[in-house]
Amino acid sequence: MLVVMETRATDEQIRAVCERMASRGLATHVVPGSLRTAIAVTGNSGAVDIGSLESMPGVQECIAVSKPYKLAGRDAYPESTVIHVPTALGEVTVGGGAVAIIAGPCAIESREQAFAIAEKVKAAGARLIRGGAYKPRTSPYSFQGMGEPGVEILREVREQFGLGIVTEAVDVESLDLVAGVADVIQIGARSMQNFSLLKRAGRTGKPILLKRGMSATLDEFLMAAEYIMAEGNHAVILCERGVRTFNDHTRNTLDLSAIPAIHRRSHLPIIVDPSHGTGRRRNVLPLARAAVAAGADGLLVEVHHAPEAALSDGRQAILPTEFAQLMAEARQIAAVIGHTLS
Amino acid sequence: MLVVMETRATDEQIRAVCERMASRGLATHVVPGSLRTAIAVTGNSGAVDIGSLESMPGVQECIAVSKPYKLAGRDAYPESTVIHVPTALGEVTVGGGAVAIIAGPCAIESREQAFAIAEKVKAAGARLIRGGAYKPRTSPYSFQGMGEPGVEILREVREQFGLGIVTEAVDVESLDLVAGVADVIQIGARSMQNFSLLKRAGRTGKPILLKRGMSATLDEFLMAAEYIMAEGNHAVILCERGVRTFNDHTRNTLDLSAIPAIHRRSHLPIIVDPSHGTGRRRNVLPLARAAVAAGADGLLVEVHHAPEAALSDGRQAILPTEFAQLMAEARQIAAVIGHTLS
Amino acid sequence: MLVVMETRATDEQIRAVCERMASRGLATHVVPGSLRTAIAVTGNSGAVDIGSLESMPGVQECIAVSKPYKLAGRDAYPESTVIHVPTALGEVTVGGGAVAIIAGPCAIESREQAFAIAEKVKAAGARLIRGGAYKPRTSPYSFQGMGEPGVEILREVREQFGLGIVTEAVDVESLDLVAGVADVIQIGARSMQNFSLLKRAGRTGKPILLKRGMSATLDEFLMAAEYIMAEGNHAVILCERGVRTFNDHTRNTLDLSAIPAIHRRSHLPIIVDPSHGTGRRRNVLPLARAAVAAGADGLLVEVHHAPEAALSDGRQAILPTEFAQLMAEARQIAAVIGHTLS
Amino acid sequence: MLVVMETRATDEQIRAVCERMASRGLATHVVPGSLRTAIAVTGNSGAVDIGSLESMPGVQECIAVSKPYKLAGRDAYPESTVIHVPTALGEVTVGGGAVAIIAGPCAIESREQAFAIAEKVKAAGARLIRGGAYKPRTSPYSFQGMGEPGVEILREVREQFGLGIVTEAVDVESLDLVAGVADVIQIGARSMQNFSLLKRAGRTGKPILLKRGMSATLDEFLMAAEYIMAEGNHAVILCERGVRTFNDHTRNTLDLSAIPAIHRRSHLPIIVDPSHGTGRRRNVLPLARAAVAAGADGLLVEVHHAPEAALSDGRQAILPTEFAQLMAEARQIAAVIGHTLS
Repeated sequence: MLVVMETRATDEQIRAVCERMASRGLATHVVPGSLRTAIAVTGNSGAVDIGSLESMPGVQECIAVSKPYKLAGRDAYPESTVIHVPTALGEVTVGGGAVAIIAGPCAIESREQAFAIAEKVKAAGARLIRGGAYKPRTSPYSFQGMGEPGVEILREVREQFGLGIVTEAVDVESLDLVAGVADVIQIGARSMQNFSLLKRAGRTGKPILLKRGMSATLDEFLMAAEYIMAEGNHAVILCERGVRTFNDHTRNTLDLSAIPAIHRRSHLPIIVDPSHGTGRRRNVLPLARAAVAAGADGLLVEVHHAPEAALSDGRQAILPTEFAQLMAEARQIAAVIGHTLS
Repeated sequence: MLVVMETRATDEQIRAVCERMASRGLATHVVPGSLRTAIAVTGNSGAVDIGSLESMPGVQECIAVSKPYKLAGRDAYPESTVIHVPTALGEVTVGGGAVAIIAGPCAIESREQAFAIAEKVKAAGARLIRGGAYKPRTSPYSFQGMGEPGVEILREVREQFGLGIVTEAVDVESLDLVAGVADVIQIGARSMQNFSLLKRAGRTGKPILLKRGMSATLDEFLMAAEYIMAEGNHAVILCERGVRTFNDHTRNTLDLSAIPAIHRRSHLPIIVDPSHGTGRRRNVLPLARAAVAAGADGLLVEVHHAPEAALSDGRQAILPTEFAQLMAEARQIAAVIGHTLS
Repeated sequence: MLVVMETRATDEQIRAVCERMASRGLATHVVPGSLRTAIAVTGNSGAVDIGSLESMPGVQECIAVSKPYKLAGRDAYPESTVIHVPTALGEVTVGGGAVAIIAGPCAIESREQAFAIAEKVKAAGARLIRGGAYKPRTSPYSFQGMGEPGVEILREVREQFGLGIVTEAVDVESLDLVAGVADVIQIGARSMQNFSLLKRAGRTGKPILLKRGMSATLDEFLMAAEYIMAEGNHAVILCERGVRTFNDHTRNTLDLSAIPAIHRRSHLPIIVDPSHGTGRRRNVLPLARAAVAAGADGLLVEVHHAPEAALSDGRQAILPTEFAQLMAEARQIAAVIGHTLS
Repeated sequence: MLVVMETRATDEQIRAVCERMASRGLATHVVPGSLRTAIAVTGNSGAVDIGSLESMPGVQECIAVSKPYKLAGRDAYPESTVIHVPTALGEVTVGGGAVAIIAGPCAIESREQAFAIAEKVKAAGARLIRGGAYKPRTSPYSFQGMGEPGVEILREVREQFGLGIVTEAVDVESLDLVAGVADVIQIGARSMQNFSLLKRAGRTGKPILLKRGMSATLDEFLMAAEYIMAEGNHAVILCERGVRTFNDHTRNTLDLSAIPAIHRRSHLPIIVDPSHGTGRRRNVLPLARAAVAAGADGLLVEVHHAPEAALSDGRQAILPTEFAQLMAEARQIAAVIGHTLS
């Protein structure tokens, strides 16, 4: 950490900072500048709480240098993490050059709907299906998911089609139920900082698909992963799904630069959700292709056989034929950078 | 709702939209324009799910006109809600010209710390004290609050000083414990869309202090209040605490325009947290005064007798003497617009 | 336009709005809703100034339906515009499936530097070179470009290598000088709403490369193009270069969803600048590939043979070898969606 | 500046950075940390261009410590700048506890309009009137200001009422004309980085009212002021007018925390424009009061006697009676913090 002193900071104030740091077992290096003095602090494992330091007289600001995450960072774990999800159709790999495709409806609406879509996405080559039994909705008056019967339908989809199940846990209460059927448990953007849920999800031992919060920085995103990993579960799949900006032409602004940026900071794989990331069906294919071209470790795509009748988010679901086209294009683009669809 | 058709939409496509709406019991009014046709849809109570409509051929976009909230909106409840919080020091009023002051530490750290601060804020005239026993922290390695012993200390503060208690519930597990001591239950910004928690908090029957999410629009904010109110609990105090923007000179950007904007849309009172809203001690007083001048129904302020030793957020806590000054200034500014400190 | 009345608006207030619209030659259609009345206004060519309407009693808000641009919009010009830039190496096409590659240094620093880079980018297959003689810089103490001698060097590059020149005009004073050598005149992000400059650039008759402002909506972006087109110059190439958001891991957040969104609203081609869009060399290739995959009509890339010695923006310039790799990858990805490098 | 090396940076790479710095006459201090080494660089006057440094092998990132502005910063000029604007009604003071009130229409529309409003704002106690003869408008089809005849009307207003004139210069072409009548020259938000205009405005020697750009950081804002000051003109009045965020309930998000933040970094006065800052008439008074409470050195307010007939921005202009109320409230609130209206 770097403590920047005010221009008119006294020697006594500088000394006081050094003593405070020493009392915590940290080393200090005083660096006199032309205008002001800075104090480099070393020896801290992880980030120092800078709040109290900035309250000391003569201190202008504190600049963190070390990143606050340990398990999620590449510093300690330079090798990229590759996650293997076993399914009846074979193991699906996420990361390390393998681009995992997860497709399906936003919400499970009925057995008929789930089966119809499962058949289509399987036919197009997907081995992981997404679909929510529990849906976090902005309005209490919107469809909140089928709940337990939806979980049962997912179980049938799993048995009938052999597809691996990716489904969301929205609270601790329903987590066990969801964990019973899921091959990958999804934690949604609104829950990214629901720390109780993160810890409990970590303890299930299942791979966790963690979506980036609507206005989360990458550091906050990785710290949320850290909560899961601190429970001993290192199988975390990060998911970029668009962030909130001033833009009014899309629901969210898909931040594809997060892909190389995460790959640089962390060993965890990162996939992209172009459906929530754009909020419009017509933008899904272009942005899905872009994600693969940028090096994403996977895609999470909403597919619906009758989007105009969907109970939630029909606006952003693509048709099965569009999904088949996406698979073909994604496969070719992945090949350009030496990746393969998984 | 207004359905805007594409320039080259056919009569058949327009008819299809009208029929779909009619099948849901809604009336349509076709408005032909110079370039394109629009279809006004009426008869809907609340918002129509527009996703599926936008998937219909010939539809360019759908524009929502009605607001999705019912209980939180001023349309159905034109009278401003005034909330009364009974304390041993007398009833504290929030709203209707009464500006409630809530002050105290970010987190309860010890009996000594809590008592020291309670004494100071009471002496300065506050009758509600804030302080967290459970703290949602970005890092799993940061101090997470004292938990149950912290709740016990809050109970002692209540008995000893007569102050009303405002404290945060971070998950359903600890909610009952918190509800046992709290006069007002706080739901933090990170939990604004933790819908399970909102519902359960609503059912406690206690007044709920609901903080605005880091990137929540006012509609989303009021929809979160709607979740609480739909449980029969109409005592919701909204709290602006800064939103996330590109600004790098503060932790968050305090959005004081939310005060008149909320007052126009909703009957609920809105208070302001200038501590989280700015993240820096030296900005707290100016922005607290500004909030009162803009018509806020209250302030939520972090006060610490030794901020440089605080276990969390010491960076933004003001000293007891600064708090006393704030009380004096807030009182005078409130008077300018006919408000009074409560 | 839709005028939404307040819940308690009187018949008289509704009538007043209709009369005001009628006095401007506009037709009105009153649409009574369950909670409030809306008034659809038609007959306006372009957007009505809604400020004064919202000041009328009983009016809650006005919602614009028509887009304010005429020449830049697809409504009036459904065919995609294809721009042809003649060079000594053959005509470069932008749009209509042709992906134009523009590469070169941020700033012209010397004859040696310009020639060295020109040779490299030409060898890799580019036929348009970028390079600024005038640089808008945040600090008055930063290198502001070589000015007129830089223009001379660009002229030599043009003659020596046959490359077409893309260079920026920063003010009306230097515009003529720049126009004398440029095959495409660039208007930078900071100048997107420098309306005097836009008009004068439009009058040169040269193709204009217009960069999106740092926080411009797509409507504002297209309105800036409209200023150029209103001067009779329809050869406008739009350029997405990243927008400002809360993200702190990149200089700007590249908004690739702007590509399909612009293609839907406008007939103009849109290219992408992954160098400014990310601000980091290591992110340029992934995002450049992503832009092509998303359907961009071109790329604007900073290439420098010695980025660690560059006088400006060396942080984001790629090496000639990286540029050659980019050309190969872009060519293959373009082919996947039926596009070809130009 | 602090150069942070990668975890696995070699001694040779560290040495190379030190040598590069030494070759530029800068001193380096190597600070070994537990995970990585940092190199503190001192001796630089102002900011080092970090682009090229980050391109060196082994360098992870560079963190600027010194601020890039010299003339605008408080480091070199600790005393607050107070600006005096002479008018026929007496000198108006900006800064140092004096809160200057500038009021008038968005645009000069006619002699009658200008005189009517001038009479009202003067009667309410203002001594500076605002009003644009040249208007930067998003659309080429919107009213662009009266131009030269508007300047003549401003001259008459000045003679007739004795009011000082604050009016905008939009380009170098019209600058001299504007400077001939203005007591304070306004540079609008869209021109904040029109560096040619800033330099030329600086050379007029008149006080400059510089508005913050729509997405400008405070550092960029102060660097724009630096362009003016580098021409020898230190009479710069900064103006916060709202920034662009995801918020959809106001035109811009007024960032009142900029007031204490600017006061800390710079000696220049900062005023607030609550009209553009909120974009809605009903929010102007609350936010104007808030600005004064937060310590603003002045207000820039749009007043129109018939806003529903205004040719631009009628949506946000307040009525003369509202302005009189604002003056009374602002006077009382200023007094609370020891300020006085000027």
